[in-house]
Amino acid sequence: MSGTLYGLGVGPGDPELLTLKAHRLLCAVGVVAYPAPDSGESFARAIVADYIPEGAREIPIVIPMRVERFPAQDVYDAAAETIAAALEAGEDVVVLCEGDPFFYGSFMYLFSRLAERFPTEIVPGVSSLGAVTAVARQPLIAREEVLTVVPATLEEAELEKHLRDANAAAIMKIGRHFERTRAVLERLGMAERAVFVSHASLPQQVVCPLAEAPEKAPYFSMILVPGRDAHV
Amino acid sequence: MSGTLYGLGVGPGDPELLTLKAHRLLCAVGVVAYPAPDSGESFARAIVADYIPEGAREIPIVIPMRVERFPAQDVYDAAAETIAAALEAGEDVVVLCEGDPFFYGSFMYLFSRLAERFPTEIVPGVSSLGAVTAVARQPLIAREEVLTVVPATLEEAELEKHLRDANAAAIMKIGRHFERTRAVLERLGMAERAVFVSHASLPQQVVCPLAEAPEKAPYFSMILVPGRDAHV
Repeated sequence: MSGTLYGLGVGPGDPELLTLKAHRLLCAVGVVAYPAPDSGESFARAIVADYIPEGAREIPIVIPMRVERFPAQDVYDAAAETIAAALEAGEDVVVLCEGDPFFYGSFMYLFSRLAERFPTEIVPGVSSLGAVTAVARQPLIAREEVLTVVPATLEEAELEKHLRDANAAAIMKIGRHFERTRAVLERLGMAERAVFVSHASLPQQVVCPLAEAPEKAPYFSMILVPGRDAHV
Repeated sequence: MSGTLYGLGVGPGDPELLTLKAHRLLCAVGVVAYPAPDSGESFARAIVADYIPEGAREIPIVIPMRVERFPAQDVYDAAAETIAAALEAGEDVVVLCEGDPFFYGSFMYLFSRLAERFPTEIVPGVSSLGAVTAVARQPLIAREEVLTVVPATLEEAELEKHLRDANAAAIMKIGRHFERTRAVLERLGMAERAVFVSHASLPQQVVCPLAEAPEKAPYFSMILVPGRDAHV
């Protein structure tokens, strides 16, 4: 009997935003895998550090920062094999996923390698989108509005094309693309109602109107443009 | 000292997809409000029925079904006053919100009436989007893809306009708009990779390729069109 692979959403940062189900699974598990930077702490692991059982085996999946925009296929190949060995030995493996596993998450690279070979379950989590709208105290969409979620890493013309018809927008992965994103929002008349949020639900969170946003935006920051029907 | 108003996301349906924070707040609360249909059970209440403390006062907010598409302003006016009276008396009030409070939720109508008068906190929840991608076992967006979230209640031409440039899409509130939505997806070449999901995370959930979807789609069903980079 092989073990089960769990893609476990751990939410946006506040450990209390874990689901009851994720908490139950995590507290009982023997093997935990998670994405980790090549130096420093894993964010996903830090969120649930207090819940990982003592003695659990840990499998950090180290993604070199320089390949941020393209998945490091051989890193996932190797991680999948390590995880597969544990599953074959009958152990359950929990893979920690920041936010929700299938909302721009890297879990898909393990899922595509392992889900056909082993029982696999996805445990959804509170996404960054939910956390950001909560701390911004700003409903995002209402009634018949359309929401467009775009990564700020797009080319400027692409970004503008996708935002032009949006009623409401969430622009993810701001980081060094802040100035360009703001310029597009200004051209489209969306800047005035836009809100900047970084580190939502964590002690160091920043929430402010776009006009007052810090010049150096972290990678995990977001700009929200609420729909006109939702705007309060 | 007035009480605190909580907009509490209760997740998509499985009671175990409540967050630890929502669970803690709910187990200790004295007053619980929730949207309810004019006949039958409140879905939001049913999700957390086992966690509501015995003796808690309940405030059902009855929304007549015929006004589905437009908020019933006087219903929310009256509910806000009932809730305000409890808050003024120093009681905390939890408002149960299906999924996430600010993702197309009706909590915004209470928030806009009460948040300036009373301490208010939003507790984000697992959204229907997270639940649907999890049970569909289908990552939704990857890398630089753009996600478009549209309500199926839009006019056909509007629906097509918004979906035309989408890399990935989630079409909400399908209900009686199923045939029209499918026709649009077929014209745009998106039907083949589309997945139909209803009642995600509940015992009666349905997950199937769009081509095999039941003819009568419930209101709380969704069609997912995964991005090409995310499609497995």
